[in-house]
Amino acid sequence: MSPHPRVGRDHILDTAESLFTEHGYKSASIREIARECGVTNAAIYYHFPNKESLFAEVMQRHAECLQDKMTRAGENIESPRERIIAILQAYIDVIAGQHAPLFMLRRNAKHLKGHGKHRGEFMQAISQPLVNALVFAKEMDEIKSTPSAEEIAAMMLGMLHGLAQQHRAAGVDGRALSDEDIQMAVNLFWEGIGA
Amino acid sequence: MSPHPRVGRDHILDTAESLFTEHGYKSASIREIARECGVTNAAIYYHFPNKESLFAEVMQRHAECLQDKMTRAGENIESPRERIIAILQAYIDVIAGQHAPLFMLRRNAKHLKGHGKHRGEFMQAISQPLVNALVFAKEMDEIKSTPSAEEIAAMMLGMLHGLAQQHRAAGVDGRALSDEDIQMAVNLFWEGIGA
Repeated sequence: MSPHPRVGRDHILDTAESLFTEHGYKSASIREIARECGVTNAAIYYHFPNKESLFAEVMQRHAECLQDKMTRAGENIESPRERIIAILQAYIDVIAGQHAPLFMLRRNAKHLKGHGKHRGEFMQAISQPLVNALVFAKEMDEIKSTPSAEEIAAMMLGMLHGLAQQHRAAGVDGRALSDEDIQMAVNLFWEGIGA
Repeated sequence: MSPHPRVGRDHILDTAESLFTEHGYKSASIREIARECGVTNAAIYYHFPNKESLFAEVMQRHAECLQDKMTRAGENIESPRERIIAILQAYIDVIAGQHAPLFMLRRNAKHLKGHGKHRGEFMQAISQPLVNALVFAKEMDEIKSTPSAEEIAAMMLGMLHGLAQQHRAAGVDGRALSDEDIQMAVNLFWEGIGA
């Protein structure tokens, strides 16, 4: 029988996530995470070989949670364009709701070995529901066949981030992107800016 | 007569820029910048009250240089769409050519007091030539009258950054965005993704 059967991975991951987001990757130690969980360091190392692997799993869980919310937001929406808008609204909802912790986590991702690759995989994971919706839109002949769904997804997400940044710089109160902003941006991209 | 007439501001700014980009804002000291310039610390303080104001001016000069290149790229191009493409190509040229130093500088901007405001002003400065070209396109009735030129500029820049990131994640060799990519993205935004 394992020596630490009652300290679940999920509990460790929850604790690590809040300490990483509060104090940053560098400052949060395994010792502190163990103390917060009420266990010994060994109990943490039983599940994770080192701090880096623990952090990588926190990031992966975060990506899966976001992915899941986006996928569910698009379910049962027949119109490809409406489905895409709903998925993007779910994405922005999560970003807006957990702005600080989320960006803290992502910023800290530079401490991971091969962080370029990690970052790429992370971005790919969180854009997957949008890519799927764009593939569906292509199958329905609602959007152009080129460029690839991956490229369109990246352009759409980039567009929204750019718009959010502009709103923040212009001092827009409250959420940087409302549901109407997202709808406007997607409709504009769909129909074109040309008069 | 000033005690340090021969140590030009420009020489100090050049030296500071290369030390900030090489070692980061925190590690580069006034003492080191002075040594590299071959002058005393006092000669630096004669021009700049502190390291922060020196850094702020390095950033501002960088923004002005980028702005200037973008503006010149769009001069004498009659077609609004072609003008916009040329401006964006100039923007991406600078980004691609000085990728590492530029991002080092921008990342370090968080050390400035009121960096949110600084960042906003910086983004506003570098998107100004694009905003001007979009205003021109509106005057020529070539693009829709809403949203604002500032919002469209932010969306276009965001779109390109998203596409570049996707290309890097997908392991595209060489420059993340070719001139053809930029042309494709602008044409797509102009005409719409809708089939």
